[in-house]
Amino acid sequence: MTRFGKHPDRDATDLGAEAVQGAVADAGIDPRAIEAAYCGHVFQGMVTGQRILAQVGLAGLPLTNVENACSSGATAIREASLAIRAGEHDVVLAVGTEHLTGRSQGAPTPDPSDPEAAVGATMPGVYAMRARRYMEEFGMTRSQLALIPVKNKKNAAHNPLAHFRKEITVEEVLESRPIADPLNLHDCSPVTDGAAAVIVMSDRAARQYGNGRAVKLAASTLRSGSVDTQPTSMTYEPLTWATAEDAYEKAGIGPEQVDFAEVHDCFSIAEVLRVEGLGLFEQGEYPAAVERGEADIDGRLPINPSGGLLGKGHPLGGTGVAQVVELVRQLRGESGDRQIEGARVGLAHCRGGKAVGIEGAACTVQILVR
Amino acid sequence: MTRFGKHPDRDATDLGAEAVQGAVADAGIDPRAIEAAYCGHVFQGMVTGQRILAQVGLAGLPLTNVENACSSGATAIREASLAIRAGEHDVVLAVGTEHLTGRSQGAPTPDPSDPEAAVGATMPGVYAMRARRYMEEFGMTRSQLALIPVKNKKNAAHNPLAHFRKEITVEEVLESRPIADPLNLHDCSPVTDGAAAVIVMSDRAARQYGNGRAVKLAASTLRSGSVDTQPTSMTYEPLTWATAEDAYEKAGIGPEQVDFAEVHDCFSIAEVLRVEGLGLFEQGEYPAAVERGEADIDGRLPINPSGGLLGKGHPLGGTGVAQVVELVRQLRGESGDRQIEGARVGLAHCRGGKAVGIEGAACTVQILVR
Repeated sequence: MTRFGKHPDRDATDLGAEAVQGAVADAGIDPRAIEAAYCGHVFQGMVTGQRILAQVGLAGLPLTNVENACSSGATAIREASLAIRAGEHDVVLAVGTEHLTGRSQGAPTPDPSDPEAAVGATMPGVYAMRARRYMEEFGMTRSQLALIPVKNKKNAAHNPLAHFRKEITVEEVLESRPIADPLNLHDCSPVTDGAAAVIVMSDRAARQYGNGRAVKLAASTLRSGSVDTQPTSMTYEPLTWATAEDAYEKAGIGPEQVDFAEVHDCFSIAEVLRVEGLGLFEQGEYPAAVERGEADIDGRLPINPSGGLLGKGHPLGGTGVAQVVELVRQLRGESGDRQIEGARVGLAHCRGGKAVGIEGAACTVQILVR
Repeated sequence: MTRFGKHPDRDATDLGAEAVQGAVADAGIDPRAIEAAYCGHVFQGMVTGQRILAQVGLAGLPLTNVENACSSGATAIREASLAIRAGEHDVVLAVGTEHLTGRSQGAPTPDPSDPEAAVGATMPGVYAMRARRYMEEFGMTRSQLALIPVKNKKNAAHNPLAHFRKEITVEEVLESRPIADPLNLHDCSPVTDGAAAVIVMSDRAARQYGNGRAVKLAASTLRSGSVDTQPTSMTYEPLTWATAEDAYEKAGIGPEQVDFAEVHDCFSIAEVLRVEGLGLFEQGEYPAAVERGEADIDGRLPINPSGGLLGKGHPLGGTGVAQVVELVRQLRGESGDRQIEGARVGLAHCRGGKAVGIEGAACTVQILVR
């Protein structure tokens, strides 16, 4: 993955190309071994992936651009894995990229046709309501919620590619600029540019090229939002659970076997909703678990060791691929001073599109095993 | 497919939903048999496919939005077929949609960062240069070129879902408003809204649900543009040939066995370049063949019996899926007074992105067999 952050002099193609070259170098393969590619992005305009291939000298390959809101990068990996399972290809590139600052300086503006956004139900607004409701239902304190950005930015400080490299305190979270009460600036993921890429291989190719460093993609699942799978409560995510349940079943691995996870903490409260929706913590119990240090890198179940979206940054298309990059590096034991000891099973979760409602959401879960 | 045309009171979601409901009705299946979906579009914004699923009561399914410029809809079908071949699903929906008039009243404006477009190398400009060069190299007359929109609009007049339902004459083409010399208004595909959908099935599901009406998808291939596969001449398309060659090989069917084709006639000259690039006609010979009626519905090798992009219209994401709808209906013998007698092998071709250059193009070829 590229350094995440603000890259005023670059664009999504250039960042994507850097990530692809990094993935090829990491895999130790001849780039000509790559047979096809998928590119995940949201706002970068048509044929972005084709431009990336041309820039790295791989034009001509089959390439499909995919978009599933904040799950776009993860979807690229899923489609790469399907192309392999179809027997169509053995070595497939998945790249996710976004030059979000080129699109907007603040949060992306809502679709003008969205009547809910027009009355204030923007992403920060909806997550603020969910935070308030969670506090009401489960007694979470504002300071407990603030511990999530504190933890994630601490992890990010140990990640040389993260957008933010500075630890913060609970007081700094509480005193940062209000965005949508009770969420302050430090409760919100930043507007980030960045890209990440992975090489997905068949078992056969992994034996040929893997050098024992390949990590198994045990499941890669995707679901869209629906009346049935959207929250009927503000504090639980049936869509996250449905997608995770598919993944646990495919991988033959239950939530109790997951050693660590990268989850879609677009806001501090989102991390709570995700880990509980994934079945990694009981509903209502995550804030206290964070307070006890259970989600720290040296805790019982580390969450967002990379720094997550809050600390590492959130370049929409790049996000889901970067999560898998973190999983791979942790499972290989290459994560330096943020290494999770003995990590064997990692889970990555993304959720994009509308936060609450009956339509327009996408969720992905990937499980990787050493 | 929906009626193609200008739909000021509708949007891409609504059109997509109509197409999906039509495809489900045509297939005679319970919509709950659909296990996953792909949505192709270019300009409709994030999670368009998820909105369509929600509108038809199918939210919750895995859905991936795909974008490959004018090949987006065809790519949705390719990805659906890969998901089936992977053994992941048996019944997959592919929908393509575009509300292009909602995006722009004229041709989509070029990317402001494109230096070639800034000096006039827009789509009409580049195709005009290719037409001029083709006339120079192969002696095509302006009137011969005009016969292509005449043929396609004649076919469209027999297609109740086409954007244009009125036959035109060579004189009308020659006297229509100049766009980029030598191309006039009737040489250019229109700005169209519309959607189309198909149900892709495994062999097993086709036996269960097909009622003998299923048509075999013998190949669905995709390539991106590159230095090697882009035209070194203005009058031949190596990218089209490379993509077609993949398809012929996969299908075990050569160009001489193709009975009819839907090709990407975004401009009159484009039809010439496509059919010659596909190996369906020898280079330099297509204009005279059209003059002899060989590409007519009752000719030796009918091209664009639906009316093509020039006559049926060109709603970017909808285009590639609508081509396959035409192939299926022709192969089933359901095309009424534009039916091709004895059609057994049909080919569909799309090409999107930059017309000339080293990057940013996508090409698809699909071969269907009765």
